[in-house]
Amino acid sequence: MASETSATSDEINFHTRKWVRPEDLNANGTLFGGSLLRWIDEEAAIYAIIQLGNGMVVTKYMSEINFVSSAEQGDLIEMGLTATHFGRTSLTMRAEVRNIITRKSILTIEKIVFVNLDEEGNPAPHGYTEITYKRDRLPSHHLGIKAPAEQD
Amino acid sequence: MASETSATSDEINFHTRKWVRPEDLNANGTLFGGSLLRWIDEEAAIYAIIQLGNGMVVTKYMSEINFVSSAEQGDLIEMGLTATHFGRTSLTMRAEVRNIITRKSILTIEKIVFVNLDEEGNPAPHGYTEITYKRDRLPSHHLGIKAPAEQD
Amino acid sequence: MASETSATSDEINFHTRKWVRPEDLNANGTLFGGSLLRWIDEEAAIYAIIQLGNGMVVTKYMSEINFVSSAEQGDLIEMGLTATHFGRTSLTMRAEVRNIITRKSILTIEKIVFVNLDEEGNPAPHGYTEITYKRDRLPSHHLGIKAPAEQD
Amino acid sequence: MASETSATSDEINFHTRKWVRPEDLNANGTLFGGSLLRWIDEEAAIYAIIQLGNGMVVTKYMSEINFVSSAEQGDLIEMGLTATHFGRTSLTMRAEVRNIITRKSILTIEKIVFVNLDEEGNPAPHGYTEITYKRDRLPSHHLGIKAPAEQD
Amino acid sequence: MASETSATSDEINFHTRKWVRPEDLNANGTLFGGSLLRWIDEEAAIYAIIQLGNGMVVTKYMSEINFVSSAEQGDLIEMGLTATHFGRTSLTMRAEVRNIITRKSILTIEKIVFVNLDEEGNPAPHGYTEITYKRDRLPSHHLGIKAPAEQD
Amino acid sequence: MASETSATSDEINFHTRKWVRPEDLNANGTLFGGSLLRWIDEEAAIYAIIQLGNGMVVTKYMSEINFVSSAEQGDLIEMGLTATHFGRTSLTMRAEVRNIITRKSILTIEKIVFVNLDEEGNPAPHGYTEITYKRDRLPSHHLGIKAPAEQD
Repeated sequence: MASETSATSDEINFHTRKWVRPEDLNANGTLFGGSLLRWIDEEAAIYAIIQLGNGMVVTKYMSEINFVSSAEQGDLIEMGLTATHFGRTSLTMRAEVRNIITRKSILTIEKIVFVNLDEEGNPAPHGYTEITYKRDRLPSHHLGIKAPAEQD
Repeated sequence: MASETSATSDEINFHTRKWVRPEDLNANGTLFGGSLLRWIDEEAAIYAIIQLGNGMVVTKYMSEINFVSSAEQGDLIEMGLTATHFGRTSLTMRAEVRNIITRKSILTIEKIVFVNLDEEGNPAPHGYTEITYKRDRLPSHHLGIKAPAEQD
Repeated sequence: MASETSATSDEINFHTRKWVRPEDLNANGTLFGGSLLRWIDEEAAIYAIIQLGNGMVVTKYMSEINFVSSAEQGDLIEMGLTATHFGRTSLTMRAEVRNIITRKSILTIEKIVFVNLDEEGNPAPHGYTEITYKRDRLPSHHLGIKAPAEQD
Repeated sequence: MASETSATSDEINFHTRKWVRPEDLNANGTLFGGSLLRWIDEEAAIYAIIQLGNGMVVTKYMSEINFVSSAEQGDLIEMGLTATHFGRTSLTMRAEVRNIITRKSILTIEKIVFVNLDEEGNPAPHGYTEITYKRDRLPSHHLGIKAPAEQD
Repeated sequence: MASETSATSDEINFHTRKWVRPEDLNANGTLFGGSLLRWIDEEAAIYAIIQLGNGMVVTKYMSEINFVSSAEQGDLIEMGLTATHFGRTSLTMRAEVRNIITRKSILTIEKIVFVNLDEEGNPAPHGYTEITYKRDRLPSHHLGIKAPAEQD
Repeated sequence: MASETSATSDEINFHTRKWVRPEDLNANGTLFGGSLLRWIDEEAAIYAIIQLGNGMVVTKYMSEINFVSSAEQGDLIEMGLTATHFGRTSLTMRAEVRNIITRKSILTIEKIVFVNLDEEGNPAPHGYTEITYKRDRLPSHHLGIKAPAEQD
């Protein structure tokens, strides 16, 4: 298992890619910070679901974010995550977004914390203490996500 | 001028509002973190343009974010910002997102830093040291934003 | 309370702002009428919910619309509304959209009428006769919006 | 040519159809007014381009709108337009939106006025006085729409 | 009834139109294949609902697709479909997308097969053997689409 | 190099993942075919750019598509591609979309053909004959994508 402090780019698996389109740009022609943050939060949710075997997860915390380089229209970017700490009901991940074309890091987030929820939306123990590189925690049936309005 | 450390909710002007719709929800029926981050980054850009009188601004840094409460479909939320520090080429803002219905704070970000750019996309002095509550820094003509592809 | 005929720009509170992006433009480089109409209808719904303390509201009528000036990419616009008449089950509002950069009015709509609905989707008395500038009509719990499919 | 006052549903050609999806709904489960207005403005632009043989057209005016019935998720709707008056630089259209499932009219707009523009964005004579039911006014080459930023 | 092999452009009714906008383009300035495929699948669903009088339909098969010409920003395109074969639980359609401006075919798909489903999501006989050019198969009440989460 | 006929699931690298949300569903609660097709076309473009080292690529052909299983809200899906044939100006790929939760294949497309373009938008030789698993063909500078309107 990766320890909380040692995760480097080499240990991160990069999966989802984006092709930067006009709708993702700021007025100055570089990638809009808000699009970046949305993409990384979505990818973190997917990563957390695979680690915890549960579709009911929410973002609880993000550590500071430095936008160290950017991207332009037509660039390809990729997002990577790795689990760095398993709490009782939480999962801490390290995230990095890279520009495939320029080979530069765009931003890193040392800690993104997601919380595992039960069916009532309360924090619930997930029972895991180590990272998985397989999909052994996912049930083979649909996750049984309920529509929002049915949860009250 | 608000000092860097003293900005409270009372000093923040809340402007843009959102009505939480299905597309903004996580699978557990609460507001998706990625939507929140996108909205606050957009609103910060608008605020920075008014403070600096320049449309060429980019997100450079965000301090840590605690998601202290959430929102559900049908809730109304509002976003507020206040300038807390004027650097030579940068502007630091404090942001808060609140739930109009539950009256609770959803998240606060102590520091969002935007950088003022010149026409080549390089940091440029903006010449301001204090917050404005008017629109006295905006030119009366269009901002003359160029299309991305023309900037190379 | 503002009377039905006297609402002026000075009496309107402008809240939500938009930064005009490529997706909001017509082919001739000016703000697309359809985006404008969508934004103002959304903002009117938010305003009506705060006035009537009820999330179940629908657009019933809009008076004529003159598109007196426009906006370009990079412009900032703001939308304002004020209640001008409280009917038994309806609320009439006056709306204005302004260009923050050019200081010009983009359009005004003298009357936007929303209707207050009960849980079956039928018009229902709202019990108010005067405008509020506070949020004293909103319940402190979630509005309990039901998903569409559950309402039949 | 259809006169300005005589256009009826029978004379309108209905083309574009929409399948009402969750993102098009109000919180009360009926079709969102803002989506309707956006769709009809887009369809009016397409209709005007075919009538005037020019891609540089903008919305100038809409007469009052009564939302006489609505639509729900899963309903099919269709939008129809007919030219009712050709001005020197303008085109007036009558619009109707219908629910294909319930066979009811959703809204009608007696007058939508578009203006024909030249390359500098100024109103320009279009030279037509009668409606066409063919595509004889369109050039066979691309319309040569310029990107917004290139027009200043 | 059109036989399975004889449908030509002349027999196809073209309905829905699109105005090609920046968000629909590839980086090389021509219409993005993914947008085209999404539009034609949506239009096929609408066509199938009208033919089968049932909102519960899904895409099962598409035959090969040649992208024979393209479209640019500002072009108008139109989508046409015709039923070519009625199976017991399926409907086969032929689709064509054309560029209204250049008068060229953009793509054709010889066979798009949709399947008619019952309330449990299983294939169900639809009872039709011939094409209708009217709307005589649609019920006059809403289609009663249930929200996804309620179907399990 | 993978031969044209031998590519299996094992040889495909799966990268981009999606979390199925309400906006991606058909009315019957399963994944909308149009969303699937859009996603796979986007991912194919990213894959082709990496193989050909050129951002100017377009979809030319897709072989038949069987939608063999589906996905529901909350499911995770992943898209994989592998180059199967390098023509003089074209690249042929095999694509598969899988459901991470159910472990089932959703669809496969035996041949997706992209064409390599020069700056005028004409087919151009790309000079490659074998698949790369690295990023050795990408330039280290931005791809220099021009805005659509500038290419005429």
